[in-house]
Amino acid sequence: MIPHSATLEINERVRALRRDGRDVLHLGFGEAGLPAHPRLVELLRENAADNRYAPVAGDEGARRAAAGYWTRRGLATDPDQILFAPGSKPLLFAALAALDGDVVLPVPSWVTYAAQAALLGRRVIGVPVPAGCGGVPDPDLLAGALDRARAEGADPRILVVTLPDNPTGTLAPPSVVEAVCAIADRQGLVVVSDEIYRDLVHDGSGVLSPASLLPDRTIVTAGLSKNLALGGWRVGFLRTPDSPEGHRRRDALRGIASEVWSNVAAPMQAAAEYALDEPEPILRRVAESRRLHGRVARAVASVFEASGALVRPPSAGFYLYPDFAPLRPAVTALGLATAADLGRHLLDRHGLALLPGDVFGDDPAALRFRVATSLLYGDTEQRLAALASPEPEALPWIAASLRRLDGVLATVREP
Amino acid sequence: MIPHSATLEINERVRALRRDGRDVLHLGFGEAGLPAHPRLVELLRENAADNRYAPVAGDEGARRAAAGYWTRRGLATDPDQILFAPGSKPLLFAALAALDGDVVLPVPSWVTYAAQAALLGRRVIGVPVPAGCGGVPDPDLLAGALDRARAEGADPRILVVTLPDNPTGTLAPPSVVEAVCAIADRQGLVVVSDEIYRDLVHDGSGVLSPASLLPDRTIVTAGLSKNLALGGWRVGFLRTPDSPEGHRRRDALRGIASEVWSNVAAPMQAAAEYALDEPEPILRRVAESRRLHGRVARAVASVFEASGALVRPPSAGFYLYPDFAPLRPAVTALGLATAADLGRHLLDRHGLALLPGDVFGDDPAALRFRVATSLLYGDTEQRLAALASPEPEALPWIAASLRRLDGVLATVREP
Repeated sequence: MIPHSATLEINERVRALRRDGRDVLHLGFGEAGLPAHPRLVELLRENAADNRYAPVAGDEGARRAAAGYWTRRGLATDPDQILFAPGSKPLLFAALAALDGDVVLPVPSWVTYAAQAALLGRRVIGVPVPAGCGGVPDPDLLAGALDRARAEGADPRILVVTLPDNPTGTLAPPSVVEAVCAIADRQGLVVVSDEIYRDLVHDGSGVLSPASLLPDRTIVTAGLSKNLALGGWRVGFLRTPDSPEGHRRRDALRGIASEVWSNVAAPMQAAAEYALDEPEPILRRVAESRRLHGRVARAVASVFEASGALVRPPSAGFYLYPDFAPLRPAVTALGLATAADLGRHLLDRHGLALLPGDVFGDDPAALRFRVATSLLYGDTEQRLAALASPEPEALPWIAASLRRLDGVLATVREP
Repeated sequence: MIPHSATLEINERVRALRRDGRDVLHLGFGEAGLPAHPRLVELLRENAADNRYAPVAGDEGARRAAAGYWTRRGLATDPDQILFAPGSKPLLFAALAALDGDVVLPVPSWVTYAAQAALLGRRVIGVPVPAGCGGVPDPDLLAGALDRARAEGADPRILVVTLPDNPTGTLAPPSVVEAVCAIADRQGLVVVSDEIYRDLVHDGSGVLSPASLLPDRTIVTAGLSKNLALGGWRVGFLRTPDSPEGHRRRDALRGIASEVWSNVAAPMQAAAEYALDEPEPILRRVAESRRLHGRVARAVASVFEASGALVRPPSAGFYLYPDFAPLRPAVTALGLATAADLGRHLLDRHGLALLPGDVFGDDPAALRFRVATSLLYGDTEQRLAALASPEPEALPWIAASLRRLDGVLATVREP
């Protein structure tokens, strides 16, 4: 099945509106909104003439650095367990392709998982997330959902989790991850743990990875797109288990990598190595980024709360997932029924771009949206100022966007 | 099905031997073996700080340049018909994924087509190439092969051709392309035309693309990996037909692109634009490259001929596909039966790495190999000297490799 790309569509729509001279507050796209670290830019420059095909799994230095990255996070890793790719998307795709069976996803979850599963002809078994956090299926619902799926002829064998989560901007607490992993273990699921936001927990605390709990049956993906804002560079990496089965999976993944994409662009590999070795300038930049993301996400969450929406308190990354359920009567009064309706209305009438929850597998009748708060940081100079500011939400350009957002939401609350 | 990657395997084997201090003559890997053009390196440096997610289809400038590239080659193209990707591999994969049906391939053909088809669960219908050239099925055999495939339950709907060809280093003449396209048209096949070697026809002549003959049913792929030796940069581009059906295919391909790889690395896009605008320095570099490839390919072909192997005269790219059939008695005397056997023997005993033909779908019992002649050019300084030399095959480092090759082949001829 050919995926329909909702993120593609919203970006094209925003571009078209901007071409028409409209001033759009684009909170619909998951870009970290920060500049590349100057040392990484320098390393790309230094290696610009590198035109050789790199090894499929990645240069030795980059793989060694990625292994160190995981080892420092409590997951002892050999460079041989690492596979690089042009972004984590191809890695997630390869992981699903290399594994058998249908795919269990939290609802809501990042758009790409379900689209990739569909492209591979797999069924998706959606399980709602718990009330307190996103990124994992509610452990109280998971076993029942698997039973029902099997009764309906599905063959669920893969569970994808997002720690921390896109779209909810939250991190599942250890107790929930443990409960989910216990069920995954009993039910024979392989876990694909997308940890691309792992370094962006606002208070700097760590992430309990399923790879710590189910070391032999967890594949972890990550990348430089979010923590170091290098989305456009396309650098992702994956960790396979250190077990005979894990090594078989690694070989299968390398085979797919070799046939579908070859390697991460050679000139990027030295920068990836430097970044994943995490010298002090990189650690400082990541720390500044998560502080900025946290402050602005909380400020935006306050605006949504003040407008009457429900929002899980953001704890990681740069997203919110507000629910306009309490505003349902006002939305109905506007002649709108679904998040897609309301999203179109907000974009066409008020130039506010949000992604409706149905895109993330959520109930289309609900009034939930993903809000990317990192798009408020401004242009390059402004972004650097925001990184350095003790109170970025008070910077004039960010405060102005917050006021504008408040004004738009007021028109929903009081049409 | 998980592909087994033969190119991956030979590269790892060569790396391991070299780590052990062995001096390997590696003619088993399809790298153009030339430096990046300095202006392209400069452009990558200038854009190194560009970390935004680029549009999925590619930046407007790059797409405009790619459209111009095709238009100058007789295929009028709008930028909207262009899709960029990190290499042409993901584009070929997406094309197969977006099209229905089983896949007709020339035998031999590039390893990746069959591997991608297998990964997508499609059957491969292999049709031998004509005696004179590779890259297309023999038109005298194609219709019969399709009938037989259908009788066996296959559903052939896609034909992949390679113009000019990897692995044979030849270009199918217009009459053969016309005959193949006439059958494809009658039989309702969509043609995927891989034209990544298109600018490397040794005498500089053009390529008759199936897109000229079957404009509504041909998807063309190309890239900067071969003509400009930028394999490690990962820049490919694809052209969809200018028709309602073509636009539907484009949308489907963009959807897949968005979910599987996002975009070509942003810092590479300005270089791609410059390269595909084909200013004089780029045209000169490509002309020098094809002259070098031609001279060295012919010199290597002479060595194989002198050893008693059969070789199609190379006319494009940097490959040969010699057949050791006339040396069968000598090979048997060595206790070897297949190309894989002989390949292992040549590598282990003599440090000569060639890819056996079975990897390209050829009969495993045959004694055919792909030889990548571009790996003889030496290190960076030597490559520049080779590009500038009127008689590159006489340069000491290239002549020495030719002599070494001759010596190794002599041990097969006269064990």
